[in-house]
Amino acid sequence: MSREEVLFVNEAFYQAFAEGDAAAMDALWAVDLPVACLHPGWEPLVEREAIVASWRAILQDPPPVRCLAPRVFDYGETAFVICFEAIRGQALVATNLFAREGGLWRLVHHQAGPTRAEPPADPQAHEPPTIN
Amino acid sequence: MSREEVLFVNEAFYQAFAEGDAAAMDALWAVDLPVACLHPGWEPLVEREAIVASWRAILQDPPPVRCLAPRVFDYGETAFVICFEAIRGQALVATNLFAREGGLWRLVHHQAGPTRAEPPADPQAHEPPTIN
Repeated sequence: MSREEVLFVNEAFYQAFAEGDAAAMDALWAVDLPVACLHPGWEPLVEREAIVASWRAILQDPPPVRCLAPRVFDYGETAFVICFEAIRGQALVATNLFAREGGLWRLVHHQAGPTRAEPPADPQAHEPPTIN
Repeated sequence: MSREEVLFVNEAFYQAFAEGDAAAMDALWAVDLPVACLHPGWEPLVEREAIVASWRAILQDPPPVRCLAPRVFDYGETAFVICFEAIRGQALVATNLFAREGGLWRLVHHQAGPTRAEPPADPQAHEPPTIN
């Protein structure tokens, strides 16, 4: 089911992020489709090469990021996830947009930004993801 | 051409935003497709009613927002725009995701957050005077 596939790829994204796995991060991004990335506070990045390079820089010292409360929004050939990113007691909210490319769901856009909202209280408790 | 249509709807979004036109804002959001909205600093909103209510509240005192440097990323049945939002000398970056619903492009997701990047100078401020 495509929503579960999307959640799986979203999880792979946060695993690569938390583990500093730049090769896995590179492989997650679409190759032929247009891509963009809005890191919090950065210049907008709109070229694949610049996006992958930005992640390579970030992943040299990967933060202990956790994805909380992911929710999938499904539009057939594209789908996005919104979730909280918990990093050292700080909470961000993120949008991860995926599109099918060659039969695989790949990232085509990421935006993260600060929030004053409280992410779910117990980060270790593995809530089942919500699917809209 | 769908890119021009998407830019047009994106412009309509900022017009409704700047003019405090809550009815136009309501009409821009998809009705049947799932929707989400991440206002800077707010709780994630994932119900159409809550999203429209949030805009109604914001538009009671609409900020002098301008959309700068919009770029369209096109995936066929969905497309997103990233752009700067200039509000009283402050710059935000935004993602506006659109999907086709009943033949129209409608908003299905909006996220805005702060940026340290410099938006391009307001093109309107540098337009040469029109000569008739």
